Amino acid sequence: MKFNKKLENISTYEAGKPIELVVREFGIEPKDIVKLASNENPYGCSTKVQQAVGAILPQMAMYPDDSMMKLKEGLSRRFELAQENIIIGSGSDQIIEFLMHAKADEHSKILINSVTFAMYEIYAKHVGAEIIRTTSQQHDLEEFYTLYKQENPDIIFLCTPNNPTGDAIDAQAMLAFLEKIDSDTLVVVDGAYMEYAEVKDRAKKVTPKELVAKFENVIYLGTFSKAYGLGGMRVGYGLSDAKIIKELYKLRPPFNITTLSLEAASVALEDADFVNECIALNFEEMKRYEEFANKQKIDIIESYTNFVTLCFDDNRDSTQLSDALLRRGMIVRNLSGYGMNAIRVTVGTKEQNDRFFELMAELI
Amino acid sequence: MKFNKKLENISTYEAGKPIELVVREFGIEPKDIVKLASNENPYGCSTKVQQAVGAILPQMAMYPDDSMMKLKEGLSRRFELAQENIIIGSGSDQIIEFLMHAKADEHSKILINSVTFAMYEIYAKHVGAEIIRTTSQQHDLEEFYTLYKQENPDIIFLCTPNNPTGDAIDAQAMLAFLEKIDSDTLVVVDGAYMEYAEVKDRAKKVTPKELVAKFENVIYLGTFSKAYGLGGMRVGYGLSDAKIIKELYKLRPPFNITTLSLEAASVALEDADFVNECIALNFEEMKRYEEFANKQKIDIIESYTNFVTLCFDDNRDSTQLSDALLRRGMIVRNLSGYGMNAIRVTVGTKEQNDRFFELMAELI
Repeated sequence: MKFNKKLENISTYEAGKPIELVVREFGIEPKDIVKLASNENPYGCSTKVQQAVGAILPQMAMYPDDSMMKLKEGLSRRFELAQENIIIGSGSDQIIEFLMHAKADEHSKILINSVTFAMYEIYAKHVGAEIIRTTSQQHDLEEFYTLYKQENPDIIFLCTPNNPTGDAIDAQAMLAFLEKIDSDTLVVVDGAYMEYAEVKDRAKKVTPKELVAKFENVIYLGTFSKAYGLGGMRVGYGLSDAKIIKELYKLRPPFNITTLSLEAASVALEDADFVNECIALNFEEMKRYEEFANKQKIDIIESYTNFVTLCFDDNRDSTQLSDALLRRGMIVRNLSGYGMNAIRVTVGTKEQNDRFFELMAELI
Repeated sequence: MKFNKKLENISTYEAGKPIELVVREFGIEPKDIVKLASNENPYGCSTKVQQAVGAILPQMAMYPDDSMMKLKEGLSRRFELAQENIIIGSGSDQIIEFLMHAKADEHSKILINSVTFAMYEIYAKHVGAEIIRTTSQQHDLEEFYTLYKQENPDIIFLCTPNNPTGDAIDAQAMLAFLEKIDSDTLVVVDGAYMEYAEVKDRAKKVTPKELVAKFENVIYLGTFSKAYGLGGMRVGYGLSDAKIIKELYKLRPPFNITTLSLEAASVALEDADFVNECIALNFEEMKRYEEFANKQKIDIIESYTNFVTLCFDDNRDSTQLSDALLRRGMIVRNLSGYGMNAIRVTVGTKEQNDRFFELMAELI
């Protein structure tokens, strides 16, 4: 059977066995496996969320409220935006997918940072668009501007704080950059880790309300997967000019968020204490990573997120090191696939981090 | 901002307030509202599923197992197919979306029944494909074949039992039809309500294993939203030749099923008693609809599902009738939008159906 040509450029992603199972094949007990690979909230999710979801389990049989009234009202209050400025996706991933299908095709160019969230490229391939990358590892807005003038991209992605490097763009510099971009170029500001960044440094805080008020071509993305502790529930959102939201809505499949996910996100949004406490603990524990890296003379990128990126010199190989950690039950993200001799480690609980330091001390 | 041209033909679907809220505006208490509009399982979901999901609520923080190992193993056992023949989607809707993006574009034709599941047309519009419809209200395979020869469609959808009419195609006739279709035309057999049909009449039972063994161009779709009682959890599946599944996997967003949905569907699949009991109750209650329709001289389409379709003569108007029901707290689906002077009513619990008969007796 013949399929669309654009599929030829997509490699099939078939997830293998869960990595926990791989680790168990090394004879490691489940209780001894530590996963610091996916930047989930190591403190889990709010007990209020668990109670609320537990109370509506019989509603699993009923289709979700497709107007998402409760969650939209919550987001509207939180961000001081009208509901017409809000779209909710199955993770912010799905908003990226909508954007790509709404704005790009096989004649389009997409401008992204050299090292950034992998899904931008994956969804660009779905529509056959060309990816243009900067050379700088951190977001260099001057280089972005040069490439913008040169390549005339349809979409620009700015990921702040950036995944998998953890650095963040100065908010004022970003606003100045956005002023220079033509209103027919869509700019995506992906703030998946913004809850962490704005606590660490107010200068990194991007305010969706300000973006929406000033720019008709900018969309801000947020997620419940990180600070809110709902990685398993697949809820993200896009905040933008009503005209953009209206177009994205055309591509939204009905019932794209489950009944339980809508409840979980709505309740999570109101439990600020849980989120604040997790963020405070995160940065306390992150200091220990900084101390460890300094002591071991490993480069660490200053992080505005819930993960740290450790960059190695030529004497160490990130692939060998992450394999060695894996065989000891410690799962981290090797960044060799991003062209970096580095690993990304989620800042875990005190006990998880202790174990990481202990194993690393053995291995390096 | 300019968007892709194909979006011009899509009307924005913005779900309004939940219909329950609309009904409450008529001064009706939530406890007095009966919703028989979405073909959910009126008996809810299995208590075993509720217990299993309730036991893993802390895992909401963790990304789903993207290999979906447990659910795939369950589906593999149930349908006697290899895992390479299985793809799991956020509802079977999402498999339809993958199929459309994999096989169709703005030059494609999609052949569907005159009256059928609305999402086929909606996803066809997403890729700009042309819709060809039969004239017959029930699936007339001869007309399908004539149009197939005449129009050379890229995809044919057969919905059996059909939504919103409830009738089903004879399985042997379908196999004979499939034999005549060229292997480069994709045929989708949507069996969302098949669990009901195969209990009522074995001659309607389509066996995915047989389809996969015989045809490399056919995909079978199933869902957990109906008989399994998980409409809110968004889990469906596609069963097909490994080559088709491989292409669809290219378009699957990672983590497209939530952690709790994977658990719910895996456990639901094993609780055959619950499903069988619900189906038995469904057909017992359906008899009362048939008796009611006969007594009231209303045409009822013989249904192989968990809903009935009541067709009115010129003396009654389905829009007026469904509005009148709504004002009394009874929510059903008016089919005027499908060009039918009819309503579709989910076969509810005994009490829900009593209420429907009572209100209808008042109104007609």
